[in-house]
Amino acid sequence: MNWWTTDDTHDPERTSWVDSAQGHCDFPVQNLPFGLFAPLGLEPRIGVAIGDMILDLRACARVGMVDPAVSGSLQETTLNQLLSLPGGQRRVLRHHISALLSDPAHRPALSDKLVRAADCVMHVPATIGDYTDFYAGIHHANNVGRQFRPDNPLLPNYKYVPIAYHGRASSIRASGVPVRRPMGQRKPPEADAPTFGPTERLDYELELGVWIGAGNELGTPIPIAQAGDHVAGFCLLNDWSARDFQAWEYQPLGPFLAKSFQSTISPWIVTAEAMAPFRIAQPLRPEGDPEPLSYLLDADDQRHGALAITLEALLLTRAMRDQGLAPMRLCQGPAANLYWTVQQMVAHHASNGCNLNPGDLLGTGTISAPTRDGLGSMVELTVGGKEPIHLPSGETRGFIEDGDEIVLRATAQAEGFVPIGLGECRAVVMEAK
Amino acid sequence: MNWWTTDDTHDPERTSWVDSAQGHCDFPVQNLPFGLFAPLGLEPRIGVAIGDMILDLRACARVGMVDPAVSGSLQETTLNQLLSLPGGQRRVLRHHISALLSDPAHRPALSDKLVRAADCVMHVPATIGDYTDFYAGIHHANNVGRQFRPDNPLLPNYKYVPIAYHGRASSIRASGVPVRRPMGQRKPPEADAPTFGPTERLDYELELGVWIGAGNELGTPIPIAQAGDHVAGFCLLNDWSARDFQAWEYQPLGPFLAKSFQSTISPWIVTAEAMAPFRIAQPLRPEGDPEPLSYLLDADDQRHGALAITLEALLLTRAMRDQGLAPMRLCQGPAANLYWTVQQMVAHHASNGCNLNPGDLLGTGTISAPTRDGLGSMVELTVGGKEPIHLPSGETRGFIEDGDEIVLRATAQAEGFVPIGLGECRAVVMEAK
Repeated sequence: MNWWTTDDTHDPERTSWVDSAQGHCDFPVQNLPFGLFAPLGLEPRIGVAIGDMILDLRACARVGMVDPAVSGSLQETTLNQLLSLPGGQRRVLRHHISALLSDPAHRPALSDKLVRAADCVMHVPATIGDYTDFYAGIHHANNVGRQFRPDNPLLPNYKYVPIAYHGRASSIRASGVPVRRPMGQRKPPEADAPTFGPTERLDYELELGVWIGAGNELGTPIPIAQAGDHVAGFCLLNDWSARDFQAWEYQPLGPFLAKSFQSTISPWIVTAEAMAPFRIAQPLRPEGDPEPLSYLLDADDQRHGALAITLEALLLTRAMRDQGLAPMRLCQGPAANLYWTVQQMVAHHASNGCNLNPGDLLGTGTISAPTRDGLGSMVELTVGGKEPIHLPSGETRGFIEDGDEIVLRATAQAEGFVPIGLGECRAVVMEAK
Repeated sequence: MNWWTTDDTHDPERTSWVDSAQGHCDFPVQNLPFGLFAPLGLEPRIGVAIGDMILDLRACARVGMVDPAVSGSLQETTLNQLLSLPGGQRRVLRHHISALLSDPAHRPALSDKLVRAADCVMHVPATIGDYTDFYAGIHHANNVGRQFRPDNPLLPNYKYVPIAYHGRASSIRASGVPVRRPMGQRKPPEADAPTFGPTERLDYELELGVWIGAGNELGTPIPIAQAGDHVAGFCLLNDWSARDFQAWEYQPLGPFLAKSFQSTISPWIVTAEAMAPFRIAQPLRPEGDPEPLSYLLDADDQRHGALAITLEALLLTRAMRDQGLAPMRLCQGPAANLYWTVQQMVAHHASNGCNLNPGDLLGTGTISAPTRDGLGSMVELTVGGKEPIHLPSGETRGFIEDGDEIVLRATAQAEGFVPIGLGECRAVVMEAK
């Protein structure tokens, strides 16, 4: 069975007996994302989201309600072991959870194992061994490249190499954890020397996160045709960036402190299985673009490798909160604006023999659309702060200010299937220390 | 007590009753590095090197021979918990081990807890959460910069920013594990498009590795005056590099697959305590260089922050092995060629609030001397392969070939103290798959 094949867990007629999962929501019974949640005052445990509730999978496992083959994984304090399971075992678990949550006969046995998500704290779901951030949003690469290198926005390697850099794993935090405005070095072009202080160009980046499932041995590349088997699931990723630090530090070895102060992820792992109905053909490369080298080229990947996900970013300032205003949408656009598929990223990453491990996290890079309403970062939207945007509160923004909250959301949609969401990725910016 | 203060564990008159530790060697009783060793067929455990033997600290802890405060840490299967101990506790442990191994009265109780190092496999000593590679060898930066950017070798940020990038933690291996020649994309300047194949420009890089001890909370920088307290110890690091991949992929986000296929470290953590006698003044910056910004400037760091360590790299080819020849030295030079101290690297790394954790690894960057006999990589030594070196076997080398072994070694020396070594960091290159 291929990883893009749908089955009865995706049946649009299937509904859950959990009331809040029945209408339009991020987590209908067709989704079933895994996460690490802590009821107030208690330690984290593994659960699955359904509507606005969480089913405690540890509790289910403890009373023998799940397949013994996965029962141990569900009683761990991180999702790493669950992620490492072969796709077949995760699929069996998905079928079982889908049955539990759709057949009302199970309601009595499960009612004391359901908790309100609003009463829980969500944690980073896995111990992230390594975090790698790609740069596959070609419109973003073009837009940002134009600001950093006006005469040379898209470098000659871009259409051959899925460009990426290693990011900082230790400072990744789950949605809801505030972000401290970082201190750092910046040197405006007109200054003689850099100064040290709080960033004046704090930005967000709208990205998709990819959770690695099964790993590969050091020295053994992952062929493109098998790359999908190594993807366990997806989340949202806000790759917070200090543009002034970045401009000064990034040559010749790439971004470092401009990114490492914190990254925020949505806490639910929307599985590759749940995403099966939303697999679409990879958009055709524009006329004149080179064909991918053979280690990145696979007919199945071209037919099923892209994702029908629409992402958006919203801004809510302190004044907007005080005035009772709703968050304002900054951008919206499809994941199909990625120049490389997730499978191409995985195959490239392992092509030199580098070993990926369960719980590794990949970022796709900022997903921008070619049009103004789809620019996935402030530096693009405001042209480096030169064209501030106007907010319903009467404020303007060139970059992110203290008290601002950035909210990322995403929905996967396809004809004939129930849409599923990725949950929220949000964080408020606190003033520098 | 400051971290550069010596005490009676450094007394040059102190000797060990372990015979092999009495003459000139890497591991006299003044060193006492920690490592993770596995006697053949057994699981890894924590030990300390003495001469050509290893004292099994887990066995010592199990029979109550060490301070109960550290006994648990010594029975772990990695060194992370030991590294996280406050410096004071590690110092007490050092005094105790020094007494055990120097007072012959302990010989009877310890003889069954000593194993021959030659009979053991050494492992990567800690779970490396994040690995960061600096670029602090200014002569290397100059030499390599000249090849990548002839008109602009040292970028304007170099003398202000301790330049670094995040590296790949998963592919770090202990000395002795062979390195598979990686596959990848490279595009010679004269070619129209890149091709995919084994690297033709495999290189080594001679670096010092730095093990982080106590960490810092996310959002809380480490002041330069306290940075030394966060350094647990040192090792050698060979940052294997595929120069052809690097040249093609590194813009704009830095090196990725050119480095991530494998990095090799010497397996012993030579502690900051052991290194106390070898603390020297930071070399004066050349006339005209800017003073470090205040968050990187500390009088104590300037007086005691550099390391009196001499490093060398050696090459042993298959033909040289067959002919019974000794490894040939490729380069030798002092760590004082680093433009930034390790403490400056730590303070810079955490200056944006990025959290460091026990067991994080830093690389200093390649340490080259300004003279030809001190060039710490092949790309420097052979000017990008254009001036191959001649070997005693009659062979020549522009870059590293299959079957070649690279050996790194280092010794810390200071007047009035017994020199200590860092142990070997070696690996043979295997042909591409």
